Amino acid sequence: MASGKELCEGVEWRIRVVDGSSEVLVPPTGLARKVWLRTKGLISGLGMKVRMFLKQAWDMGANDPRKVIHCIKVGLALTIVSLVYFMRPLYDGVGGNAMWAIMTVVVVFEPTVGATLYKCLNRVCATCLAGFLAVGVHWIASQSGDRFEPFVVGASIFILASIATFSRFIPSVKSMFDYGAMIFILTFSIVAISGYRVDKLFDLAHQRISTIIIGTSLCILVIMMVCPIWSGQELHSLTVRNMDKLSDSLDGCVTQYFTNSNGEDDQKLQGYKCVLSSKASEESMANFARWEPSHGRFNFRHPWKQYLKIGASMRSCAYCIDALNSCINSENQAAESIKKHLSTSCLKVSSSSSSAIKELAESVKKMNKSPNMDLLVEEMNSAVEELHNDLKSLSHLLNPSITAENQISATGLVPFMEIIPVVTLASILIEISARIEALVGSVEELVEESEMKDKIVAKEEKPEGTMKALQRV
Amino acid sequence: MASGKELCEGVEWRIRVVDGSSEVLVPPTGLARKVWLRTKGLISGLGMKVRMFLKQAWDMGANDPRKVIHCIKVGLALTIVSLVYFMRPLYDGVGGNAMWAIMTVVVVFEPTVGATLYKCLNRVCATCLAGFLAVGVHWIASQSGDRFEPFVVGASIFILASIATFSRFIPSVKSMFDYGAMIFILTFSIVAISGYRVDKLFDLAHQRISTIIIGTSLCILVIMMVCPIWSGQELHSLTVRNMDKLSDSLDGCVTQYFTNSNGEDDQKLQGYKCVLSSKASEESMANFARWEPSHGRFNFRHPWKQYLKIGASMRSCAYCIDALNSCINSENQAAESIKKHLSTSCLKVSSSSSSAIKELAESVKKMNKSPNMDLLVEEMNSAVEELHNDLKSLSHLLNPSITAENQISATGLVPFMEIIPVVTLASILIEISARIEALVGSVEELVEESEMKDKIVAKEEKPEGTMKALQRV
Repeated sequence: MASGKELCEGVEWRIRVVDGSSEVLVPPTGLARKVWLRTKGLISGLGMKVRMFLKQAWDMGANDPRKVIHCIKVGLALTIVSLVYFMRPLYDGVGGNAMWAIMTVVVVFEPTVGATLYKCLNRVCATCLAGFLAVGVHWIASQSGDRFEPFVVGASIFILASIATFSRFIPSVKSMFDYGAMIFILTFSIVAISGYRVDKLFDLAHQRISTIIIGTSLCILVIMMVCPIWSGQELHSLTVRNMDKLSDSLDGCVTQYFTNSNGEDDQKLQGYKCVLSSKASEESMANFARWEPSHGRFNFRHPWKQYLKIGASMRSCAYCIDALNSCINSENQAAESIKKHLSTSCLKVSSSSSSAIKELAESVKKMNKSPNMDLLVEEMNSAVEELHNDLKSLSHLLNPSITAENQISATGLVPFMEIIPVVTLASILIEISARIEALVGSVEELVEESEMKDKIVAKEEKPEGTMKALQRV
Repeated sequence: MASGKELCEGVEWRIRVVDGSSEVLVPPTGLARKVWLRTKGLISGLGMKVRMFLKQAWDMGANDPRKVIHCIKVGLALTIVSLVYFMRPLYDGVGGNAMWAIMTVVVVFEPTVGATLYKCLNRVCATCLAGFLAVGVHWIASQSGDRFEPFVVGASIFILASIATFSRFIPSVKSMFDYGAMIFILTFSIVAISGYRVDKLFDLAHQRISTIIIGTSLCILVIMMVCPIWSGQELHSLTVRNMDKLSDSLDGCVTQYFTNSNGEDDQKLQGYKCVLSSKASEESMANFARWEPSHGRFNFRHPWKQYLKIGASMRSCAYCIDALNSCINSENQAAESIKKHLSTSCLKVSSSSSSAIKELAESVKKMNKSPNMDLLVEEMNSAVEELHNDLKSLSHLLNPSITAENQISATGLVPFMEIIPVVTLASILIEISARIEALVGSVEELVEESEMKDKIVAKEEKPEGTMKALQRV
């Protein structure tokens, strides 16, 4: 903006007069013009920013229409709950406290089913528990006389709020009941204190609980009926997608290095970086998925935690791919002869590794053990073996035969330094294949656990089946 | 538990009778005993779990007493705000809606100053904005007649709630105003709808805003006065701590490898894993730190974002240390002669790298450019150069002289494979030193930016100084 202004002031406008000479048009200076220019600059800058912002928002909506659907769902749920306000019988039923139902919808509605259920269940349970406790404390306080009542209530709030806050720091509580602990403090304080002024304490507690139940059940209905987004399904797809990215990156990097092609898609090569940065979202999804009922191919108590292990294995592969990448982009160029010597086996390792990962992705996708998996791992291992052999035979190329001809080559100086990048690359590749084997292990664990859970569910459903059969007899 | 029961039932108790033979003691069977055993098991299991949980909680509190202090602060703030309820003039002043003040304290109080300020400011601004808008919408609705009023209100809620929810997905809004958008929806719905039933709408809006202001100012007072924890300071310390861990891990791994010592502390060696997993907490801290006023040595608008860049550089070093670690633990053992040949220069690189990181940590700690930094980087580079030279001279050890004596050694088979692990380790070390140089760059940027901000602040304060000087004249 400032530079635009300077440019504007630097330009000289000339007008050609009839006699052939030209006159400089002096621009009108002064405060008014400066203010005008600055305001114009500000407005155009602001307009630009707003346009950019709107474009960003539009792109986001276009890329993921589910986000737009979520917004409409929130609007829908809120509008429905507002109806409670407009209908006299419903309004009177909750004693004019319909506001709490609205509040519940606003704070509880999350994009995924799991997150919404987590908040709903936490809110309802914590409200009930805190309500009962608060009524109890209020009774004790009222027994202790008017003078001590505020102290008893104050002390109980201080103690319970401190304990509940502390519990929010404990990891196991935090992952399951963080929101519940907050609602517990909230409800307990409000109900315990209201006892001092509100006569109908039971009515208050009852109204709060019933409005919260209205709000949460509406949320659960809307979130599960209208285009539901399941945390579990999201975690599952993210895992599959990340595996594909990992496989593409690995294969792409090595192929680009050995074939000297620059045609590879750069975004594809950098895909492993998504794997590196998806830890936090994996964890929160796994956390919410635990609350979801069975949906699609996933039972309740599907082994979601195993996905975190798979994620960790994938990240450990990605660390190595990062090291591989820097080895490929390093300044020390490798000798072409060496590259050629190792290219076949390195490419074999990378392609067999990446097809093993692809197969793993397929196996997670279909949630069954792939029959080809063992074969692919074997193939990968034999490719690694081949690479080992090629590495061993590399010493031939160190070329002791030219000792006599050239002193520098004799000591192997130039060739040896040019071997290093390729050797490093090869040994990182070997390490990657070892880490892929660990990944295979964790995927197999997931598949087995999930099959076991399926069997348990089938077993639990069986007695009912026998019961029905008996009834028929 | 189940296995314990089986074990119990699997044991056979025998009693030796006088004639030398023994009789099996059949345990008393039956439902009662089973129930008793199962209940006992359940209770002891539960007791064990509770004990474990309490121990975990106690350890957490003992390790970080600030968490306990935070809990006491929450209790304190809640008890103070409850006083509003017990004091008649205050209670009447907010029309019996003191509950909102309590609610504000519960939902707004966070462990760090930044997070609390973020929530307070968002809550106040969003409430005011939504309150004004809702009153406006209510006016329009009341003009449109009794029949259309619910529809106008309903439609406005639907539209504004959807837009506000959508805005929460946009990254720039999410990082700054996520909580505000939620409060906006909440307040707007409540006030717009209350207009339909509550006559004194302005009173309602005024009460809501004043109770929220009471709650937030109390929170801000308590959080900043009683042992404040600053997000910025936390981020700063985390960065310094992570640098120390990185340096210890790097030096420890390489030293352990070359000196074959197992005396190194395993926790120290694994320290780099903390660096790998601290991305999410760094981001949230940097986000909250932006809201904090100047504290300690940090001005308002301290370049907190630069810490994220430093974090990313540290992680990229940590990826390489992970690869290095697996190289050290690999099955392919290196020949002792090769290890010895490279040990001096590798140890030099690792110790100079780690002291460079240590110096960086010191530089971040004191927030000034260390005068030794350039020297240390130079030292690291010359160590790398030395390592390069040692690698070059390695080809001597491939020993072409024994060609005639032994066919296997002649092709260099055994020696070459035993070189690979050390060569890989050396080239990863070289890569780490390159990444440390990038880290040095980002730390220098931080120090420069912070010094620049200091100067700007000093400049802004200067005019006042001249004013004072003029007044004195």
